[in-house]
Amino acid sequence: MRNVVHIPESLLGVHEVLSAGLARVEACFDQQVQSEHAPVRELVSHVGRYRGKMLRPTLCLLAGLATGESLTDDHITLAAVCEMVHMATLVHDDVLDEAEVRRGGRTINSLRGNEAAVMLGDYLIASAFHLCAKVQNQWYALEVARVSMALCSGELVQLANRDNLELDRTTYFDILDSKTAILIGAACELGACASGAHEDQRRALRTFGRELGIAFQIQDDLLDLLGDEHVVGKSVGRDLDLGKPTLPLIEHRDAATPEQRAAFRRLGAAAARGEPEARAELRACLRRGPGIDRARAEARRRAASARLGLGVLPERPARTYLEHLADAAVNRDH
Amino acid sequence: MRNVVHIPESLLGVHEVLSAGLARVEACFDQQVQSEHAPVRELVSHVGRYRGKMLRPTLCLLAGLATGESLTDDHITLAAVCEMVHMATLVHDDVLDEAEVRRGGRTINSLRGNEAAVMLGDYLIASAFHLCAKVQNQWYALEVARVSMALCSGELVQLANRDNLELDRTTYFDILDSKTAILIGAACELGACASGAHEDQRRALRTFGRELGIAFQIQDDLLDLLGDEHVVGKSVGRDLDLGKPTLPLIEHRDAATPEQRAAFRRLGAAAARGEPEARAELRACLRRGPGIDRARAEARRRAASARLGLGVLPERPARTYLEHLADAAVNRDH
Repeated sequence: MRNVVHIPESLLGVHEVLSAGLARVEACFDQQVQSEHAPVRELVSHVGRYRGKMLRPTLCLLAGLATGESLTDDHITLAAVCEMVHMATLVHDDVLDEAEVRRGGRTINSLRGNEAAVMLGDYLIASAFHLCAKVQNQWYALEVARVSMALCSGELVQLANRDNLELDRTTYFDILDSKTAILIGAACELGACASGAHEDQRRALRTFGRELGIAFQIQDDLLDLLGDEHVVGKSVGRDLDLGKPTLPLIEHRDAATPEQRAAFRRLGAAAARGEPEARAELRACLRRGPGIDRARAEARRRAASARLGLGVLPERPARTYLEHLADAAVNRDH
Repeated sequence: MRNVVHIPESLLGVHEVLSAGLARVEACFDQQVQSEHAPVRELVSHVGRYRGKMLRPTLCLLAGLATGESLTDDHITLAAVCEMVHMATLVHDDVLDEAEVRRGGRTINSLRGNEAAVMLGDYLIASAFHLCAKVQNQWYALEVARVSMALCSGELVQLANRDNLELDRTTYFDILDSKTAILIGAACELGACASGAHEDQRRALRTFGRELGIAFQIQDDLLDLLGDEHVVGKSVGRDLDLGKPTLPLIEHRDAATPEQRAAFRRLGAAAARGEPEARAELRACLRRGPGIDRARAEARRRAASARLGLGVLPERPARTYLEHLADAAVNRDH
């Protein structure tokens, strides 16, 4: 996870292997999405600028190194597949969210219109499946498609709960799991599979990825509420604008007295109607309320749980690196 | 191709096998897209109403019957995969086109917003790949993904040529091939593969599908220009509104004298700026010009070429049925 983790000296060796692997992942990605058609090439090159933390490829490669001796072509391919699926969802998410800024640059939809963004996302999904089908063993294609279906389901359930201030924690975590955590868990498991890892190691890494993914997304919720656009690198305050109930909001609501809750509901309804003052007040209210600390504590618990599960893996630098990532996921400001 | 072809008595046997096969394809489709999440189920059930001619499954099954003895589970699965990919593109096309009517019903985007339509299309694509990965033989997944990439490329090239009245015939046919014909060709080839057909039969059926697909799409262009919304079952006149250069327009322009061409260019530019009178005049001008007959002749040539290539197949009712479909593709009014 680029630019987010401080690397202690003992991990410089694995860090070097990882960096070389990530460079191969990028080359594999670029080769897969190349096109003979100029309009496609132009859009695809813009997406290159979206590339950020490379969380999923990083996890896929580290899971491979934590359970095997070295990185094979399959590790590189599968890491690129995970990033491509993720990139497709980013492009479509930006259409859904009408976002204008992503990783410090303008989004495809704001530059070239929703039509191009929809089709480019589709091109990336198809490219991901095409790349995945090249790996000898159909299980990978089946798994990546299953995860992609879950991802879309999560988005659809989230859409159906837009402006639903009464969203319960269970549904919130279901959405988060489908939308984010399952793909991150799969990135870990695919890496382990490509190393020929045993079922218990695969399961441990999948669970690690899912817990890390949940911690990561809660931190994203917090950054959207508290962060500075220039540091975060994308539009902030969007979750509230788009009526997406996040964990800080849910925790705030659940901690409120009945009277506070009634006032909170009125404020939320006004914000949902798009009244700018109500939105600003809701944001300020959440920022000073107890939801922030509670959500932060949940993220820390998830990160700790993610670390804990790695106990079944052999003690190797790659495992220690994964543990570092779990901490970094909840201690980042972008 | 439901409700479009008149079936002569000699083909009633194969028609019955085909109908039973299509019913299995529908069941397979429905089972694959089912979901435990109510918001997903609701949207998916709406898509069921989009189901129309079932052209791709029909071709897949007939190609299987033309080269093999009977329909296997793989034929059914692959036919459902082709329809699912097509359905995904319809849902996303309607977002791109801002269409409000599809097969006599309202579109997902007009009913539930663009966000739901984008995500539902993604869910259908992922479902198609998931279903395809269940077939034993990775070649299918690779081929379906390759075709899907071509499909998106075609859409992106078309988008880049929006309002381009100077679009040449070669680029027009390239777009048409990628957007429509390649998937229809693949539907035929996949069906033949599942029957274990030889390479020359596979190639003949793929070429048949592509030529038929081109004929079919030109007929769609003509219906959009000449058709009646109640008969066609979807919004008409949209191609011009959306600045999509179609074959009647290209042929009209290429048949014009230099003076006519200059006037035509001015009219086209005004239509592209969105002036309603200019659009209406452009449509009227195309309707009475030579482009219609030339486009119709091209569609007929393609349909004839499609039929011709089937000569390498054994003489069977399924082959005759395919020949009937080639004729029907250019003689339909919906």
